[in-house]
Amino acid sequence: MISGKNYIGNTQAAAGSKTYKTFNPQLNTENKTTFHEATPAEINEAVALASKAFKEYNTISGAKKAVFLNTIADEILALDDELIHMYMQESGLPEGRAKGERGRTIGQLRMFADLVENGSWVEATIDTAIEDRKPAPKPDIRKMMVPLGPVVVFGASNFPLAYSTAGGDTAAALAAGCPVIVKSHPMHAGTGELVASAIVKAAIKSGMPNGVFSNLNSSGIEVGVQLVKHPQIKAVGFTGSIRGGRALFDLAAQREEPIPVFAEMGSINPVIILPKALESKSVDWAKTYANSITLGSGQFCTNPGLLLGIKSTALTEFIGQLAQEIVKIDPTCMLHPNIYKAFKSNKEKAISQSKVHVAADYTAKTNENYGRQSVTTVDGTTFLENPTLHQEVFGPYSILVQCENENELQTIMTTLEGQLTGTVIAEGDDAEKYAESIDALKNRVGRIIFNGVPTGVEVCESMVHGGPYPASTDSRFTAVGVNSIKRWVRPFSYQDWPNSLLPNELKNENPLHITRVVNGEITNKKVK
Amino acid sequence: MISGKNYIGNTQAAAGSKTYKTFNPQLNTENKTTFHEATPAEINEAVALASKAFKEYNTISGAKKAVFLNTIADEILALDDELIHMYMQESGLPEGRAKGERGRTIGQLRMFADLVENGSWVEATIDTAIEDRKPAPKPDIRKMMVPLGPVVVFGASNFPLAYSTAGGDTAAALAAGCPVIVKSHPMHAGTGELVASAIVKAAIKSGMPNGVFSNLNSSGIEVGVQLVKHPQIKAVGFTGSIRGGRALFDLAAQREEPIPVFAEMGSINPVIILPKALESKSVDWAKTYANSITLGSGQFCTNPGLLLGIKSTALTEFIGQLAQEIVKIDPTCMLHPNIYKAFKSNKEKAISQSKVHVAADYTAKTNENYGRQSVTTVDGTTFLENPTLHQEVFGPYSILVQCENENELQTIMTTLEGQLTGTVIAEGDDAEKYAESIDALKNRVGRIIFNGVPTGVEVCESMVHGGPYPASTDSRFTAVGVNSIKRWVRPFSYQDWPNSLLPNELKNENPLHITRVVNGEITNKKVK
Repeated sequence: MISGKNYIGNTQAAAGSKTYKTFNPQLNTENKTTFHEATPAEINEAVALASKAFKEYNTISGAKKAVFLNTIADEILALDDELIHMYMQESGLPEGRAKGERGRTIGQLRMFADLVENGSWVEATIDTAIEDRKPAPKPDIRKMMVPLGPVVVFGASNFPLAYSTAGGDTAAALAAGCPVIVKSHPMHAGTGELVASAIVKAAIKSGMPNGVFSNLNSSGIEVGVQLVKHPQIKAVGFTGSIRGGRALFDLAAQREEPIPVFAEMGSINPVIILPKALESKSVDWAKTYANSITLGSGQFCTNPGLLLGIKSTALTEFIGQLAQEIVKIDPTCMLHPNIYKAFKSNKEKAISQSKVHVAADYTAKTNENYGRQSVTTVDGTTFLENPTLHQEVFGPYSILVQCENENELQTIMTTLEGQLTGTVIAEGDDAEKYAESIDALKNRVGRIIFNGVPTGVEVCESMVHGGPYPASTDSRFTAVGVNSIKRWVRPFSYQDWPNSLLPNELKNENPLHITRVVNGEITNKKVK
Repeated sequence: MISGKNYIGNTQAAAGSKTYKTFNPQLNTENKTTFHEATPAEINEAVALASKAFKEYNTISGAKKAVFLNTIADEILALDDELIHMYMQESGLPEGRAKGERGRTIGQLRMFADLVENGSWVEATIDTAIEDRKPAPKPDIRKMMVPLGPVVVFGASNFPLAYSTAGGDTAAALAAGCPVIVKSHPMHAGTGELVASAIVKAAIKSGMPNGVFSNLNSSGIEVGVQLVKHPQIKAVGFTGSIRGGRALFDLAAQREEPIPVFAEMGSINPVIILPKALESKSVDWAKTYANSITLGSGQFCTNPGLLLGIKSTALTEFIGQLAQEIVKIDPTCMLHPNIYKAFKSNKEKAISQSKVHVAADYTAKTNENYGRQSVTTVDGTTFLENPTLHQEVFGPYSILVQCENENELQTIMTTLEGQLTGTVIAEGDDAEKYAESIDALKNRVGRIIFNGVPTGVEVCESMVHGGPYPASTDSRFTAVGVNSIKRWVRPFSYQDWPNSLLPNELKNENPLHITRVVNGEITNKKVK
């Protein structure tokens, strides 16, 4: 049972009079629970507790953090159907997706548990002293990663589990040694509260300091603004719109002590479809992309929103095939009436632009809040001249640009805003022939895909989920995979520090048996 | 012979009518050469060349970059006495320091040459496909670091070689694959031009694209502002004052596409002197710190500007010893009359604060522009209440805070601004007894030193030169050592990319024989 209250550390609180409810987009009705927005005093208390908790949590062993993270995973699983039903009620997404996303969330938590239990992630580096070096002795210097401090995480609307309360940002920050305060997403506050209850239970069970986690309700921007401006907050994670992410970035940059904001924002994920691929596999790609564009009602940051090809009969045929395939697919429910309305109006705006032609539009009647897919097409010159066409239409929509020639394709690639992904569909010598356009594309993205679709973000060490602005505010970090822990840490050096006072990661004996770089050599041996 | 002109790529240019000269602080006269400030058109040309050069330089082999970097080092050495004399004329620093700094500069260039020749620095990570994985096949994903794009480097006033034209920022950015535009420091524009000529010669000799390096003169802020705002510039390196670094950070954050600014700024480098160390080694530490405070006329970012102890007879004695030792040292020339004047007025401002007592003040007559050292002392409460006393006095000055008890010491540590370094002077069980104060100190610094001095920054892999704001604008990166290359790169993923089209770093055959992480294992083997 959920209460609508905030978690200020381990304590539930609801002093605020401002309230709101979540919405069931499938039933097109409000859900029952009344959520209490966190008050300024509650926010300050959560931050004070996080700051205090950091003193202890900051140096807790990897093994203990692993127990905490695994217990969170266990407690989320223990919520069982209650969580799955709440998720479906608040997102309109089907049961399969709810369970799949829960699996991903659990998987991420256990992945970070393994990472910190192993311990080598701290990048321990040791350069031992050379006392007789001339002209001056060389000191003993040892370095490792340490956590930044309390982190604020803003949950994503489109991933109520995997990128929200106990999602990738939270799991990575807790693994790093940073207490986390979640600004709960108002569209799925109930799902958030259930997951928060699991985290709090796990924190208590595994003996973590009170304040290592808080969950604050909020339907507006005030709670988030107060959190980001708070001097004790040291970093921010965000998944959402460019407008929202940029606003937080600006606030953080204007602080007396600026702090990093890792905002994973919009992307239209360009897909270049090259001539030989169209010659041999046009129908296959039309089917594949009809599915990718409409997957999850297009509500993915990696949704392919921009297709590009060189004008030809084959491209015209591909447009026809894609149009034919995409209208066969049944529309599905979007996350919220506001998201549905924004999709409808953004799509209409895009379609109404000069020289934009509709290739496909699902026009049959659907349930309320169901996103009806469209594909439009436009020539390269018009696309280059009209920035409106470069904007993300969040939902099942894609625009196909018919470039005059390779030159125009390359110009478009060069002038595109930063993107999470780019995709190349090629056969034979396509990729060699269009190497310059592909190089230009590489320079604008964080991940490039060959003969595939951008949707589906594999959680692994090699994954980069991020890209040049505005795909993310800091292209130097990924939001997915074990390396996402690097967002929440900084390197720290000890010079001539006594062995007994060093953290275990840096002691001569290597008591944690971790992999370190000792005088330039990668090793898990002791230091002699 | 120097010309006073800018290097726009490989071409010298001086279209501007705004000119200035450098100054010899030892002779207290202007130097001869007239320097031409870069014009807006010259700046745009330098950026356009850098952007064009990036297309080629971005994928050039590590071996070729190594030749380029080593040739820069050779060409700098070939400048021989001309460079050493110019350095001395423009900085007032002695020959030994000039040669030492040249050695450090050469050493850094060769260190980065070795790093990129070896090639493993790109953090290549490979996760191979699992085609029969359920519910969906696992794609092949491979990741490596790629350069950000053209970088602007602002030289430091206090390191005309090691942190300027071909200093750590430039060497690291060129090693990463980023073209560099240096905004030359106006105090040592001649030294800058000489070094720039060496870089340009090396670029031509080693066949680098024109525009891989430019050197722009400027005595004001306009050139820097235009550079940082330019959409084709992708990152900024800066070493200097908090005011200057913050101004650039703000400009970069306000851009349509924000870019990272790595500003290494002020620091007062707190030193905690604990009771047992005072009991046994008071005179030794007094001598050591008298030297550290006055080294290079205190013109180091790691100068110990803040000493702290617990009130006691021993501490009073230490103050007397430090005072006695420090006035024995002959003052030396500061970098420029403006730096000397700023030191004088900042020192006077600090000394004139309420309840601040002068412990030592060098009052004898000296040459013009020589920095006369002082040490002051104050009680903990006054220090906590007066933010003026926390400000850096750039030069040979330090304030010693006499804390009432450990509690007060800990409060001071907790409320201190971010610092590059912190030092603990301890004997016996000092460190255990004062563990909480030391923990609080750790949280405010990038490097912590045991029984030593903060001056002297070893160039090695374990070094962290950087720290929480305002020591630097991004505590997640170091400005010294091989890891400083990480400031100029971002991770990039290839998904299902054909082996023949992958960069050598990620090919199955591992043709560069680099160390990679393949399916979680650190190895330099081929991928099967």
